[in-house]
Amino acid sequence: MKNKGLLLVVSAPSGCGKGTILGEILKDDSFYYSISATTRAPREGEQDGVNYHFITKEEFEQRIAQGGMLEYAQYCGNYYGTPKKEVEQMRDAGRDVILEIEVEGAMKVRALCPDAVFLFIAPPSVEELRRRLNKRGTEAAEVIEERVSQAARELSYADRYDYIIVNGELEKAIQDFRTVVRAEKLRTKNGNKIDEVLNHA
Amino acid sequence: MKNKGLLLVVSAPSGCGKGTILGEILKDDSFYYSISATTRAPREGEQDGVNYHFITKEEFEQRIAQGGMLEYAQYCGNYYGTPKKEVEQMRDAGRDVILEIEVEGAMKVRALCPDAVFLFIAPPSVEELRRRLNKRGTEAAEVIEERVSQAARELSYADRYDYIIVNGELEKAIQDFRTVVRAEKLRTKNGNKIDEVLNHA
Repeated sequence: MKNKGLLLVVSAPSGCGKGTILGEILKDDSFYYSISATTRAPREGEQDGVNYHFITKEEFEQRIAQGGMLEYAQYCGNYYGTPKKEVEQMRDAGRDVILEIEVEGAMKVRALCPDAVFLFIAPPSVEELRRRLNKRGTEAAEVIEERVSQAARELSYADRYDYIIVNGELEKAIQDFRTVVRAEKLRTKNGNKIDEVLNHA
Repeated sequence: MKNKGLLLVVSAPSGCGKGTILGEILKDDSFYYSISATTRAPREGEQDGVNYHFITKEEFEQRIAQGGMLEYAQYCGNYYGTPKKEVEQMRDAGRDVILEIEVEGAMKVRALCPDAVFLFIAPPSVEELRRRLNKRGTEAAEVIEERVSQAARELSYADRYDYIIVNGELEKAIQDFRTVVRAEKLRTKNGNKIDEVLNHA
């Protein structure tokens, strides 16, 4: 019998290289990236079922009422949330589901899914984060300072996660991520039970 | 500041290759193998402070009374136990302490040290364990069956450990052990706190 996949909840302030790390991790088909549902209109180039599941407000509220959202939030008048069914189906099929979510959403999932694994990706320092955001050269100084403040606020949640992965060197951070996943699969609480591992042949 | 070392409690039925795995792990000086204290007389070739700390019954009972034993048991009229001070000193120095102990002792440590990490090393199957014990060719058939029964009894405790490592292939088992240790060091509960990992420079 195949063990149920893990639910990996991943948060990181912007500029931490989370996208690059997850891009690398997701090259392995055993992972599944959970796609959020939203009621906002698709932007140009965005595809339904790829960037988001675009659904109506009525449908979203119906799903909330039926307990179909693992977590959700409202932002600028639109709903954003994680469809529970998809997460459960993928996990039942043995795939490890990655839920990329901001800190408040993660804390909601913490309360609802005691078996989820919480990873926080951190920059090596706030200074380094500022340097990386500046390097992009796409934003004004005050926007960057705003994002650094936001990052500092998010960092204050890090100790509530199970693991902290520091993205100082990208290769090391990716390796740490994989190490956590491999170790979690060896845990008895994640289904690595003696009856399952013993080859009774 | 150096983080406190882990306390790794390791159990395995005999014939699982625990000694070989730990021998490989202990080549790395960051680990420390906790030496038990006992009141039994040293056997030929055994050295004090290497195989055991050989101490008198009076000293052992005094240590028990002073709370100096992490756990202890009596076997064939002799005491065997784990000196608490040594374990704590090594952990405070940042070394990961390995406590090789049978299942009942491990469960005592579980109750006393909630921050310890429990690893159970299992054979790929009971049949394979029997085969390995037979291969040694040193014991009579009834002795081997006795040890297989004992192993089966110990295996029933495995699900109470944090991790199960199956020693099917030695290299894989050693790698799994190291994976667990590395992942545990990334855990916030083991001191990987955001204030410690952020380089404030």
